[in-house]
Amino acid sequence: MPTDVLISEVGPRDGLQSVKATMPTDRKFAWIDALYDAGLREIEVCSFVPARLLPQMADAAEVVRHALGKPGLTVMALVPNRRGAEAALTSGVHKLTLPVSASEAHSMANVRKTCAQMVDEVREIVALRNALAPGVHIEAGVSTAFGCTLQGVVPEDDVVRLAAALAEAGADDVGLSDTTGMANPAQVRRLFNRVRAEIGEHTGAAHLHNTRGLGLANCLAAYDVGVRTFDSSHGGLGGCPYAPGASGNVVTEDLVFMFEAMGLATGVDLEKLIHARAVLQAGLPGEPIYGMTPEAGLTKGFVYADGHLPREVQA
Amino acid sequence: MPTDVLISEVGPRDGLQSVKATMPTDRKFAWIDALYDAGLREIEVCSFVPARLLPQMADAAEVVRHALGKPGLTVMALVPNRRGAEAALTSGVHKLTLPVSASEAHSMANVRKTCAQMVDEVREIVALRNALAPGVHIEAGVSTAFGCTLQGVVPEDDVVRLAAALAEAGADDVGLSDTTGMANPAQVRRLFNRVRAEIGEHTGAAHLHNTRGLGLANCLAAYDVGVRTFDSSHGGLGGCPYAPGASGNVVTEDLVFMFEAMGLATGVDLEKLIHARAVLQAGLPGEPIYGMTPEAGLTKGFVYADGHLPREVQA
Repeated sequence: MPTDVLISEVGPRDGLQSVKATMPTDRKFAWIDALYDAGLREIEVCSFVPARLLPQMADAAEVVRHALGKPGLTVMALVPNRRGAEAALTSGVHKLTLPVSASEAHSMANVRKTCAQMVDEVREIVALRNALAPGVHIEAGVSTAFGCTLQGVVPEDDVVRLAAALAEAGADDVGLSDTTGMANPAQVRRLFNRVRAEIGEHTGAAHLHNTRGLGLANCLAAYDVGVRTFDSSHGGLGGCPYAPGASGNVVTEDLVFMFEAMGLATGVDLEKLIHARAVLQAGLPGEPIYGMTPEAGLTKGFVYADGHLPREVQA
Repeated sequence: MPTDVLISEVGPRDGLQSVKATMPTDRKFAWIDALYDAGLREIEVCSFVPARLLPQMADAAEVVRHALGKPGLTVMALVPNRRGAEAALTSGVHKLTLPVSASEAHSMANVRKTCAQMVDEVREIVALRNALAPGVHIEAGVSTAFGCTLQGVVPEDDVVRLAAALAEAGADDVGLSDTTGMANPAQVRRLFNRVRAEIGEHTGAAHLHNTRGLGLANCLAAYDVGVRTFDSSHGGLGGCPYAPGASGNVVTEDLVFMFEAMGLATGVDLEKLIHARAVLQAGLPGEPIYGMTPEAGLTKGFVYADGHLPREVQA
């Protein structure tokens, strides 16, 4: 089924590595199953990082193996460096995402490398991919693209220059991330337009946060300037553990509702996605989750973008 | 000071009539003072309705009198009918807002009149205004313009036809209200465009709700198609008491943050507006209030649209 936008679910990675508790491996399987059953076809299932730093991700290879069993699912993993990339490529993932900060302060705090060193790292990872698994897609995500809680304003020129450097280093896509929840719609439009002018079709996903309630407005703004892939998190789980006060991924449920209500097909079944919250909560007891559409329910008269009715109305 | 958008604060009316508790009159004065001090220059301060139906509004005339003491403030009141309009015009308000539902079901539930009867009521109120207080501005707000929790889908043709009828009946402005929190950005753009094509400069404010988290995205969509007046509620207080599940006005604090961050001057001091939440809470102890910008704080490096810095940074 063709879709108008691709919702790239980041909860099992971004969400789980932002909470203190570790979701048991079988609960991760159940959650990924439920997300897949709801129609999500790109899921960032884990990150490949040392288990002593992020014990929540110690079972990354096992989680990838499970996810690879889902037909049509693009299995993604985040890797912060060459070592992680090697493990991820060995695991069989379809797509790697590499965060590269546009803020030197955030880059040092997050990975203890400068932005320029990270571009070199991406170049090495691309070479590794070419040698080991040439079919794997590499996305670089420019983090703190819209501002940094440590540095404050991040000059747009820095972001555009970094995006160009990452494309030049061989990243297939370069996305922009509002890691710290500071973006506004005018900035989102301006910056995606500038990046697209620079790297064209290599322009990737929008990864936006809802820290100040602007998450969906920023997604709309990105859509308006041609972005068609959107990262979001089921139940709004997660944020960036190394950017203080930066919690608040865009909630997948609300994002899907917005696009479907606008007549833009996501391929996602909202009712199943809402029911899947119980699976998430069973795996992370006591952890708060977010989302306004799940609380309010679908609107009376709601019709999916492709014209079909919600199951509860059909029944 | 010229502004790019006008934030029309509806909390003292829409908010207070949606909660069970009654805010004492002197607390209302203090809240209105705080909102005015934060730079808001249009405030819907009350509704003129029978005190037995809405005891929260029994002091409407007193509240208007207090608000009239603020230089440069447009003092607005909601009136549901001719009787309310007479009381409001006598009180000295500058602007009346008259809700007229595009959904027959909601109209009957809310005011026990058909849509057509309400258009006649508006015509009579216009005549009354012309006789009693010709300087008073009359705004008609098309409620349930984007859907109705009772009726479901509200045909766009009905909304456009009603807006034309209201302008023809003499309303100076006709706004569109998402009374029940069902709007999406594509619909907001389409409907405001259609209404503007029909009634041109009489097209009025956007009154949007955040029921499913789309409030700010819908405001952005309305801005994109030329809307420059936005209703919102301090602390997100309120909704429509006669539309079940319709809670959730757009939060003024988040709306002001979005526009100012985009470089659009609102004339509002966000820090004062955030501090004013304490005044609201003191007047309504225990009532939940909303807003994400107040919790997250201004972004590091934030600059107001007119170029000035937040006071805390200056100090």
